[in-house]
Amino acid sequence: MALDSVLARIDADLPQATERLLELLRIPSISTDPAYDAECARAADWLVADLRSIGFDAEKRPTPGHPMVVAHGDGPGPHLMFYGHYDVQPVDPLNLWNRDPFDPALEETPAGTVIRGRGSSDDKGQLMTFVEACRAWKAVHGSLPAKISFFFEGEEESGSPSLIPFMRENAQELRADVALICDTGLFGDNTPAIVTMLRGLLGEELTITGPSKDLHSGMYGGAAMNPIRVLARIIAALHDSTGRVTVPGFYDGVPELPEDIAAQWQALGFDHKEFLGEVGLSEPAGEQGRSALEMIWSRPTCEVNGIIGGYTGKGFKTVLPSQASAKISFRLVGTQDPAKIRQSFRAYVTSMLPPDCKVEFHGHGASPAGQMSIDLPAFEKARAALSDEWPNPAAYVGCGGSIPIAGYFKDVLGTDAMLIGFGKDDDAIHSPNEKYDLKSFHKGIRSWARILDALTK
Amino acid sequence: MALDSVLARIDADLPQATERLLELLRIPSISTDPAYDAECARAADWLVADLRSIGFDAEKRPTPGHPMVVAHGDGPGPHLMFYGHYDVQPVDPLNLWNRDPFDPALEETPAGTVIRGRGSSDDKGQLMTFVEACRAWKAVHGSLPAKISFFFEGEEESGSPSLIPFMRENAQELRADVALICDTGLFGDNTPAIVTMLRGLLGEELTITGPSKDLHSGMYGGAAMNPIRVLARIIAALHDSTGRVTVPGFYDGVPELPEDIAAQWQALGFDHKEFLGEVGLSEPAGEQGRSALEMIWSRPTCEVNGIIGGYTGKGFKTVLPSQASAKISFRLVGTQDPAKIRQSFRAYVTSMLPPDCKVEFHGHGASPAGQMSIDLPAFEKARAALSDEWPNPAAYVGCGGSIPIAGYFKDVLGTDAMLIGFGKDDDAIHSPNEKYDLKSFHKGIRSWARILDALTK
Repeated sequence: MALDSVLARIDADLPQATERLLELLRIPSISTDPAYDAECARAADWLVADLRSIGFDAEKRPTPGHPMVVAHGDGPGPHLMFYGHYDVQPVDPLNLWNRDPFDPALEETPAGTVIRGRGSSDDKGQLMTFVEACRAWKAVHGSLPAKISFFFEGEEESGSPSLIPFMRENAQELRADVALICDTGLFGDNTPAIVTMLRGLLGEELTITGPSKDLHSGMYGGAAMNPIRVLARIIAALHDSTGRVTVPGFYDGVPELPEDIAAQWQALGFDHKEFLGEVGLSEPAGEQGRSALEMIWSRPTCEVNGIIGGYTGKGFKTVLPSQASAKISFRLVGTQDPAKIRQSFRAYVTSMLPPDCKVEFHGHGASPAGQMSIDLPAFEKARAALSDEWPNPAAYVGCGGSIPIAGYFKDVLGTDAMLIGFGKDDDAIHSPNEKYDLKSFHKGIRSWARILDALTK
Repeated sequence: MALDSVLARIDADLPQATERLLELLRIPSISTDPAYDAECARAADWLVADLRSIGFDAEKRPTPGHPMVVAHGDGPGPHLMFYGHYDVQPVDPLNLWNRDPFDPALEETPAGTVIRGRGSSDDKGQLMTFVEACRAWKAVHGSLPAKISFFFEGEEESGSPSLIPFMRENAQELRADVALICDTGLFGDNTPAIVTMLRGLLGEELTITGPSKDLHSGMYGGAAMNPIRVLARIIAALHDSTGRVTVPGFYDGVPELPEDIAAQWQALGFDHKEFLGEVGLSEPAGEQGRSALEMIWSRPTCEVNGIIGGYTGKGFKTVLPSQASAKISFRLVGTQDPAKIRQSFRAYVTSMLPPDCKVEFHGHGASPAGQMSIDLPAFEKARAALSDEWPNPAAYVGCGGSIPIAGYFKDVLGTDAMLIGFGKDDDAIHSPNEKYDLKSFHKGIRSWARILDALTK
């Protein structure tokens, strides 16, 4: 059987595939630091050469920032577009790493073999799962089962400034029947997942000004408005006693979970005690009457991400500050409208100001929630293929964070995207000692081979 | 008349008195910076020499820190002890000064002549008012009207670590019938004041811990407890809607203002619009139904002096922080007990914690309010003497800040203290371009001559 030969080839080639990944991981392609610009270009060159070695028509394509890698391989079936990113996060604090982040290696751990190094999970290890699946397919069959394209960017960790312009300029070339994005995780050790709900994000920074300058609390305390108190009152008022957000109109467009998805989630047996226990917590702290999975996947939130005001150094200063500020973000779901919520939030905050206080707002990006088109046959095909590879069936899951790329494929190119990945919560992405399980890498490659097969049969 | 001759002498000697003050101001006696240790000693030496030149038995007395200056002069009447401090605040930011802070000079301003330089108002100019009054008295009469002592410290701006030990070790020598402290201000341009109520101070720092580490708000937002929200709720709950502090038992020991003092304050015609207008405010923000003067002088307060948590740099990070903390201070009045309030505050905060949250407290000093013994005849005598010198009658006023020295005289030595000074709100003490009005200096000297006369007649 065609697929079995490919899977066998993947198993046999795993040591070489791992060696190739280690080679890519040795390139310190940190996109946020201009000192590593040449390394980003080198990572792009490496990918171009590797894809060409499989027979792809691959190119490094310039942008005002780091280059894109675009590659095409002909085949009979539908057009599949694969997205990943070759840039990585900075590595500081370096002293918390147990080895040079760019001298990657296999390490034996109690939980199994891991590939340790910056970018192993986010996203070089993940993007290579798809490359290796194609390599094995080509090696066994001498051809690809479909028209397959690769689209790798080098600015994902620095806000993707060139992505949308590049997609617009090359829309015809990048448009596909389906986009496959490998930058997400497994649901559990043995349970693969397809992310079908992505929360949107709205960021707001507000600065409350009371007195025109910092005052001495002995001289003015009691008579002068304290902006920290005002800010605290505003933040406290953003949630009611049941944990619901009080911004007027906030829940417009927030859907209830469809019954089939609710059933899938129920079947996942998510253990919130374990999930929260890992970070020293025990009780879900969100809206009353909602499960922990709903709280992080399908319910909107309002969080304070930062607050500062007055004297915050060592010791004590009896200052009555002129200003206090906070960074607040909203995770959005369904059809919640970021622009409307921003407007409503600002009006609501302003309505709570006491006399003599001013507020200034600074917006920090706004993206609506994403909802994948799970009615497309490709979704159920991919879910079945994943379920064949892993011990437990695959689930459609939500993702609390924002992965804007899926929305860009849809909005800019009209291409539906599937988010499938093999990362794990303990991969320490963006942190010291990042790793990717060898099992994730191996079964990830096998998963893509199965999905390729399923989508092109 | 004896007093008139002294006042005439003061008027005639003003240029020389000013020159002496400028000499003292040229010594950069910054007590917080060890680089200026020798300069602190030099300021003490200068004072010793100057007091000896008037005939005082003056000595520089060592301490583990900067030296004290103690001087005695014999006379027939009661024993008057005069306190001031010769150390000054640091001068940074230096670029905001219009001249070298230690190259003092007279400057003409639209509001009159000022003595510009670090320490001119706090406290070298003020302490020299008393020295000059004694010099003039001695010059005219050849003797002092009372046993007069000086007690100058050089650590007031760095927390007075040697003060209480020195007072204890030299209690017999420093005990007096009344202590006169010149480190406060006028009520208004033409209205002198005797501070008779000093608010106490209780400082508390609290840190709320939720998750055991910083989390990604996409992954955990909604399900994990956010310590900034918890802290904001606690701070918001510290005051009720009428501005009263809600800590249980907080108002135990808070007295109502005696009617005669209330009448005096009413007569001051305090313009809260002007007071608050200078700092960009208009409405007193404290307890409903209290006047602005009550709010800053005779009512207790609870202020947040600093708050920090999460990401506070430029841009946005969707962190859900592990910790958030705040520095909170209470200004105390009457017989409010700092220890009891600390305990009650901590219990109250702890009672408001949701599940999965911890709080840690760190205390930052606690001093009860001070109430001067205005029933002593010296107070009314001094008030009458001040009223003779200035256009408007003198008032007994409160002071929102903490001036611990008055309490030390009472507690350590059993000596009642009077706080009389001639500083103004716009003197910019502790700030760039500190100044002392020449009028404050001149009429301050004359005021002390009148008070000496009144207390020894």
